[in-house]
Amino acid sequence: MPHMQKIVECVPNFSEGENPKIINAIFGAAKTVKSVKVFELEHNASHNRMLFTIVGEPKAVLTSVFESIKVATKLIDMNKHKGEHPRIGATDVVPFVPVSNVTMEECVELANKLGKKVGGELGIPVFLYEEAATKPQNQNLADVRKGEYEGLRVKMSSRGGSALGGNKPDFGPSKMHPTAGAIVIGARKYLVAFNVNLNTKDIRIAKQIASKIREKNGGLAAVKALGFEVDGFAQVSMNLVDFDKTNFDQAYRAIEKEIKNYKLKIKNSEIYGMIPLESLVSAVKSTFKADTFTSDQVLEKRLYE
Amino acid sequence: MPHMQKIVECVPNFSEGENPKIINAIFGAAKTVKSVKVFELEHNASHNRMLFTIVGEPKAVLTSVFESIKVATKLIDMNKHKGEHPRIGATDVVPFVPVSNVTMEECVELANKLGKKVGGELGIPVFLYEEAATKPQNQNLADVRKGEYEGLRVKMSSRGGSALGGNKPDFGPSKMHPTAGAIVIGARKYLVAFNVNLNTKDIRIAKQIASKIREKNGGLAAVKALGFEVDGFAQVSMNLVDFDKTNFDQAYRAIEKEIKNYKLKIKNSEIYGMIPLESLVSAVKSTFKADTFTSDQVLEKRLYE
Repeated sequence: MPHMQKIVECVPNFSEGENPKIINAIFGAAKTVKSVKVFELEHNASHNRMLFTIVGEPKAVLTSVFESIKVATKLIDMNKHKGEHPRIGATDVVPFVPVSNVTMEECVELANKLGKKVGGELGIPVFLYEEAATKPQNQNLADVRKGEYEGLRVKMSSRGGSALGGNKPDFGPSKMHPTAGAIVIGARKYLVAFNVNLNTKDIRIAKQIASKIREKNGGLAAVKALGFEVDGFAQVSMNLVDFDKTNFDQAYRAIEKEIKNYKLKIKNSEIYGMIPLESLVSAVKSTFKADTFTSDQVLEKRLYE
Repeated sequence: MPHMQKIVECVPNFSEGENPKIINAIFGAAKTVKSVKVFELEHNASHNRMLFTIVGEPKAVLTSVFESIKVATKLIDMNKHKGEHPRIGATDVVPFVPVSNVTMEECVELANKLGKKVGGELGIPVFLYEEAATKPQNQNLADVRKGEYEGLRVKMSSRGGSALGGNKPDFGPSKMHPTAGAIVIGARKYLVAFNVNLNTKDIRIAKQIASKIREKNGGLAAVKALGFEVDGFAQVSMNLVDFDKTNFDQAYRAIEKEIKNYKLKIKNSEIYGMIPLESLVSAVKSTFKADTFTSDQVLEKRLYE
């Protein structure tokens, strides 16, 4: 049996989006671990926020993201931070995502290991979220982040340290780190960003279709959808938050069906950013009824087992 | 810019399909090069023939296949070989196939390098075929192999050594190696094996559709197709010999269109054996009009750049 390499993804978000020295120091720290790939650095000045992607074997990814958190802890002072995006710490949120031969349970374990290390060695309170959450109230990131850095700092410094209405951190001290705040660490499924452009400029149609297919309104499972105008065309913009439930081919076909009611057609589609091989394989399998097809038949995958 | 790894495939065929010691010695010799992957060993006693797949960087693949040819030259005596499959040597045919970041020209160059080495160091005559052919008469493998080992041995030992009506080998001596015969080395495109099962037991329909879609009869470019019965269902069995010209999604849609004339449906399909990532990406791109999608967006590919 060939060795099946475990691959995990981590997408840490930091509260710095302007200062190139700080941005590069944090990004560079992650890259000091040679066995991982670090890419897709994005930063936004108005959000005053940056994020990037680390991919590799679980242990190496853990070391890589910890190195970047150490640097962010040193260089970012939350007392001086201003930005449009909600945040509670210098390192704000750190999700682990299973990519290949890794279970969600292993990613939850990684979140716990990192949380323990961050809490113990850096003295920063850690809240576990989504699949790693230890309490229902912490499953949703937005709920954990409610009140943001400023609000949480006040709550957590109150007597008894029972922040967030008794939301004691999972690791680390009960009080905010004086400059780095708190960190939300967790595990979630891979998010596929998929947009479908319609052969019309009428944005209302994109909005109507988005509203019909999104999970919230009883549409496709694990699909978030919005209608936009992009380059003069109406676009249904989707986040597929669990492609095992609804993959991009199913979303495409659902829109193809809806658009017929308007006597319109799909102009084209866009897979945005990175996508795991399994999503492609699964789309090919279902679209062409290739029942026995697996990613082990993909030459490039076999090459690196 | 990340380093783009060059990946080439090589599928050597040897004239031994029974003796496990010889089979394992040849397979094992290819595996002595640690940086390549060697897999998909197949052997067939009635054909008395074996083949396997080597994948990796061009230089390492060349070394790996040469090691296996050396062992085959030592262990196989063509004077004693019997088998149903046409063959002219102990190592019978060696194609190089571009997989990733490699051009056909580079594979032709590899075929020439290997041919020179085999001719010079092992004293075996080498004919270059398909994309590597130096004369039109050697493009088709079946033509080069005409007469097989026994016929070629007689022709090449005749005065003047002008084998095959003046078909002088591209490398090595003009006469057959006394035990290993001759070798055909070349370069070709990746072959995708794709079968479509019809929701009928009527094999005539599979044969009619195969006949209609194959290139020979003016159908799809670079498609070879036959009709079979498999597990009680009619099957259109295809070799897609250049998936840049016709990929599996196009073949599927062509059959889907034809089958409507019979008021039947496709039961399922089968991607047989290995397939390059580019074929999947291209199928997704065209099926979902994902115009800007490239294999660089596939996480697993980026991981190994």
